[in-house]
Amino acid sequence: MIPFNKPYLTGKETKYIEEAVATGKISGNGLFTQKCQQFFEDTYGFKKVLLTTSCTDALEMCAILADINAGDEIIVPSYTFVSSALPFVRQNAHIVFADSYPDNPNIDANTIENLVTEKTKAIVVVHYAGIACDMEKILEIAEKYNLIVIEDAAQAIDSFYTFKDGTKKALGSIGHLGAFSFHETKNIIAGEGGMLTINDEKFINRAEIIWEKGTNRSMFFRGEINKYGWVDTGSSFLPSEIISAFLWAQLENINPIQEKRLAIWNRYFEGLKDCKNITLPVIPDYATNNAHMFYIVCKDLDSRTALIKKLKENDVLAVFHYLSLHKSEFYTQKHKNGALHNSDHFEECLLRLPFYFELTEAQQQKIINTINEF
Amino acid sequence: MIPFNKPYLTGKETKYIEEAVATGKISGNGLFTQKCQQFFEDTYGFKKVLLTTSCTDALEMCAILADINAGDEIIVPSYTFVSSALPFVRQNAHIVFADSYPDNPNIDANTIENLVTEKTKAIVVVHYAGIACDMEKILEIAEKYNLIVIEDAAQAIDSFYTFKDGTKKALGSIGHLGAFSFHETKNIIAGEGGMLTINDEKFINRAEIIWEKGTNRSMFFRGEINKYGWVDTGSSFLPSEIISAFLWAQLENINPIQEKRLAIWNRYFEGLKDCKNITLPVIPDYATNNAHMFYIVCKDLDSRTALIKKLKENDVLAVFHYLSLHKSEFYTQKHKNGALHNSDHFEECLLRLPFYFELTEAQQQKIINTINEF
Repeated sequence: MIPFNKPYLTGKETKYIEEAVATGKISGNGLFTQKCQQFFEDTYGFKKVLLTTSCTDALEMCAILADINAGDEIIVPSYTFVSSALPFVRQNAHIVFADSYPDNPNIDANTIENLVTEKTKAIVVVHYAGIACDMEKILEIAEKYNLIVIEDAAQAIDSFYTFKDGTKKALGSIGHLGAFSFHETKNIIAGEGGMLTINDEKFINRAEIIWEKGTNRSMFFRGEINKYGWVDTGSSFLPSEIISAFLWAQLENINPIQEKRLAIWNRYFEGLKDCKNITLPVIPDYATNNAHMFYIVCKDLDSRTALIKKLKENDVLAVFHYLSLHKSEFYTQKHKNGALHNSDHFEECLLRLPFYFELTEAQQQKIINTINEF
Repeated sequence: MIPFNKPYLTGKETKYIEEAVATGKISGNGLFTQKCQQFFEDTYGFKKVLLTTSCTDALEMCAILADINAGDEIIVPSYTFVSSALPFVRQNAHIVFADSYPDNPNIDANTIENLVTEKTKAIVVVHYAGIACDMEKILEIAEKYNLIVIEDAAQAIDSFYTFKDGTKKALGSIGHLGAFSFHETKNIIAGEGGMLTINDEKFINRAEIIWEKGTNRSMFFRGEINKYGWVDTGSSFLPSEIISAFLWAQLENINPIQEKRLAIWNRYFEGLKDCKNITLPVIPDYATNNAHMFYIVCKDLDSRTALIKKLKENDVLAVFHYLSLHKSEFYTQKHKNGALHNSDHFEECLLRLPFYFELTEAQQQKIINTINEF
């Protein structure tokens, strides 16, 4: 059986975990956490990075920092993982779901302005498959209505957006705040894990406090105050050094990992580009491809179901992706702005193919052949 | 320098992490998570256990399960870590702080009934140093006023309470819900980590949903439903299998760990029992001792400050503990029920001595001698 995903070990993960234990400190915010954070800030131009236990937790920090409360409205695409919306639900906000483009699962930037009301406080954009949303257009709307832009960059490590003036910025460094995932299915993994990126400096001090259970412990350790105490809301958002040490081994290998994944992505694209019954991913001119996943879009639900079955018969595990959140059991009664046809289309027709570092050319050729025969 | 804490490795942690990676699944709720959960349920009689990324997160699950909302009041001891109160603050509840006993940092059960109002929804008890609170009295009050009892058992693994009829129950198995920590300073560690224990069956189904980001994914994997979706609030509370694999290596050694720690505790007690200027911990008849920490209580703040200094001059790192939460910057304006003298007493006078598996007899004797000379 060719699995859908297989976590990749670079070989140094356990060595670094042993090093972390040898330091005498394996709780959060130790040496490996700081090394990882520094790496991300230096490599991608985030103003400040804080590792978290998950991307969900990073988005909870965004929701607290953006001061989201009951009565606020947050614009979120419907075709996304539940975690893009959930942290704002925990703050008692109302989620206003937006549609995707017809040919791209990302939030359709042209539909956003119509969803803005006096209660709108933030826009959450999700860079689906690591492909950038139309950030320039989204930033314009946000500026016009004074909204906070939160990038759900769960899948978008090492991916970029190019502005009309030629400026190229890493995803997660463009909105006020961003969130990444190191879940086992991502390019760079830690089993479960994530990070918050802060690009608007005004959020940095409070973020450190919220991260450390509402205490000013970080300031204490920098010698800025004499003793630390409870000063704000927050949670235990910081991961164990065991997780950060594991992540560091991955980061040291981010370039070979990305090269290999891009080769896999390109082989899929070349191998399937003449297939009549499916549509392949579209990468807009402003976006780069970080080879997070390879998906195809089938003609309809029946066709996808049949293809999943055929692949399974050939020992290949391909999986569909999100169910439109606006039609979920939890939100269907609360959703007020009508049908979101493009989101529903991707719910019914999008299919993710096996994608992992150790996928061999032979395995990939078998998958490509099976789809072409279909 | 004798450090205050040193994380102990049993030797199999990295082996099990490698095993976890080899299974192809290192995200949450994998084989090691399930093994750890089963171990805790079988060994300590919890009805259901869910591992979490921290004790704070386990308490957030308690706060959601107990349906805590704005307007609710929660009774919490003031002499505790901020995480005992913070999850209820995130649910917008008001915290009513209770005092400690004069001779024991635990919540004074005799003071609780006076704090109950029509708005009171739950009592959070904290088993300080792993020593049981007076659970029988607390359960009586909770039953009388229909309150939920949440055990903050962060420090209380492998510790027990004996009821008047002779029934002996593990801490964390007595209240409706309980929360444990596997922070690096605890008896059993995972760097950062925790678990929720559920003793009232009515909470189990919802807990599994909240744990998995508000989705019914657990039911899906058990084959109880055909596809999973968003049905409730929640977060990403479940830890990476890397953490659970690490934890499993610790659990396999819980008995030798506990024996060693008890020997250390007893040596401190014997070595310091004739020291006139300090008070030693009191263990009530209904409680067992899990040797989580060894603390002494000095006569006053000046005496403690001088002792910390003397120990430091002798290369020993001893640390004080909590600042009373009711006087914290975050809560001092919100706190309405007066002075809590016993909490303040422990804030000023309690001192924790170095305590870890690899503390040698020679090191311990040096610490004991330094204190006796003082």
